[in-house]
Amino acid sequence: MQTLRWHDDHLDILDQTCLPLETSWVSCHSLEDVIEAIASMRVRGAPLIGVVAAFGMAIAARRSDARDSEALIRALEAAGEKLRASRPTAVNLAWAIDRVLLAARERLHLELPALVGYVALEAQVMAREDLETNRHIGQSGLEILRPGLRILTHCSTGTLATVGHGTALGVIRTAHEAGLAPEVTLTETRPRLQGARLNAWECQQLGIPYTLIPDSAAAFRMQRGLVDVVITGADRITSGGDVANKVGTYMLALCARAHRIPFYVAAPLSTVDLALDRPEQIPIEERDPREVTHLAEHPVAAPGTSAWNPAFDVTPRDLITGIITERGVLTAPYRDRFLELMGQPVRS
Amino acid sequence: MQTLRWHDDHLDILDQTCLPLETSWVSCHSLEDVIEAIASMRVRGAPLIGVVAAFGMAIAARRSDARDSEALIRALEAAGEKLRASRPTAVNLAWAIDRVLLAARERLHLELPALVGYVALEAQVMAREDLETNRHIGQSGLEILRPGLRILTHCSTGTLATVGHGTALGVIRTAHEAGLAPEVTLTETRPRLQGARLNAWECQQLGIPYTLIPDSAAAFRMQRGLVDVVITGADRITSGGDVANKVGTYMLALCARAHRIPFYVAAPLSTVDLALDRPEQIPIEERDPREVTHLAEHPVAAPGTSAWNPAFDVTPRDLITGIITERGVLTAPYRDRFLELMGQPVRS
Repeated sequence: MQTLRWHDDHLDILDQTCLPLETSWVSCHSLEDVIEAIASMRVRGAPLIGVVAAFGMAIAARRSDARDSEALIRALEAAGEKLRASRPTAVNLAWAIDRVLLAARERLHLELPALVGYVALEAQVMAREDLETNRHIGQSGLEILRPGLRILTHCSTGTLATVGHGTALGVIRTAHEAGLAPEVTLTETRPRLQGARLNAWECQQLGIPYTLIPDSAAAFRMQRGLVDVVITGADRITSGGDVANKVGTYMLALCARAHRIPFYVAAPLSTVDLALDRPEQIPIEERDPREVTHLAEHPVAAPGTSAWNPAFDVTPRDLITGIITERGVLTAPYRDRFLELMGQPVRS
Repeated sequence: MQTLRWHDDHLDILDQTCLPLETSWVSCHSLEDVIEAIASMRVRGAPLIGVVAAFGMAIAARRSDARDSEALIRALEAAGEKLRASRPTAVNLAWAIDRVLLAARERLHLELPALVGYVALEAQVMAREDLETNRHIGQSGLEILRPGLRILTHCSTGTLATVGHGTALGVIRTAHEAGLAPEVTLTETRPRLQGARLNAWECQQLGIPYTLIPDSAAAFRMQRGLVDVVITGADRITSGGDVANKVGTYMLALCARAHRIPFYVAAPLSTVDLALDRPEQIPIEERDPREVTHLAEHPVAAPGTSAWNPAFDVTPRDLITGIITERGVLTAPYRDRFLELMGQPVRS
């Protein structure tokens, strides 16, 4: 399974709004195409939108009419601002843009065509690294798993949320491949049903046994003793370890705490935002109420209903047992460990 | 708004599976018609299915080929067994059947035609009492409400769950009519979306301001300080005050507890099952997984997905602040108060 294909001057993305009933690809030839794909959730998942944004920068570089390298940097800065606004919560987006900008600025001495080529190369490196990082996250996850665990997860966190392998579902996949035979409960993840559509499809393809539940049945499933551990992804993590993730994550964390079930977050260190110390500093995207009141343009609520549709929520650090990263499983206090690990390259 | 119309030998019911996009009525001429309407959730809501079952007994009496009153009682007992099996969790169903049977047995001295007529009369009395009871529940609710409260409620608990006025939404309606200007958050209530379809529609008709949210956004809405109190209905209450209600209720109670938000249940005393002492004794209906994987026959999950679809969950007594009944707001310990109140008629 692939989520992206880079073609030197344009990016093809697997359109996740149609999955799994339809497998269709969308070609992004301009910065605007990339922004539309991110904002409309044709691509989603924090690591994946980071990499897509990097390719967006590469496309912006190719399409730029800059006449020298300094002008190209300015064009990339402008492109980065537009990309940044496409979805506000996942910090991987800003992280990827900043990384491309930093890399380009460091190579300001290159001739314009070489610099343009370098931006595309950096995006490709980031895509390859994402896959590697996720495999490391999967390996880290083995530290906390034992055979036959019943794992509950939320939203889509596999290959479809990344370039490959996945984060939370990546941990489950590594456990499955290591013969630990995990059994998975998937929340459907309203309103966009990423659990029902995407995570279920991936589990099927990987041969991982799973059961789908409505989001609101999670607490009851825990009460019935059918959940041993919860693992979710993350869209932004504060320096103190508070986690913004798909709406419903906080609810799962509260329910897990009430049942004394460990609650882990699986995410690359690129999800950590060292600039933020407190949970309320994370901007939470509110999306179109129609995502709640309609399903595939079919009304599912009383006509004229106004809905609240936050795409994410924030789980405070004290509800989180540990964060599964490409550098191991971290536990509180997080700040110094984040600082220590984020200054260094990932071991391969 | 009406949910039922009795026509002496058949019952017309408002088909709630089509609401609010379509207002259509279904005529029940036989016991089987009534059972189908309950099992397929054309009528739903614990108080309403109780009254519908009573009319089902009246239809069974009319259609019976019993040749004397004793044979009629036996026919009614058989009809009651079939009705009882149509949905297992709401005790109001069994309560209503038992009440009709008791009333019929007490009038065994009547001639057959008079006894048949008496069964229909008892059902009509129960329908009228349900409306009265719910108005009393609404009045009781005023004890715990103050002006401008932001109330979160789950599923459909208004007129559409009853013969009239409603239970949890009935409390909100009484508060609205008393000028307390409540603002309401409605959970959409997957998988059947009773909150989005039915409670939203009723709030609209009553002029009560409301906001719809995905079930999984409830915890985040509480964290944001947008919920002052939670009020839900109930399908069965143990003698100790544990509450079976629409799946997701337990999750809301856990989240409310974590945010120190009062959590009330509004229900008639006919919802109390004095025979049960412990939460795990309540039978929990598991419905067709297709309710989760499909929406109006349209697939919303990966094809071949197996789902867990418990229709209810159980909230233990210690998470419940109080139970709003037609005889006032009760608090723990419940058992003696239930015993005291359930032996007496409701004050009018």
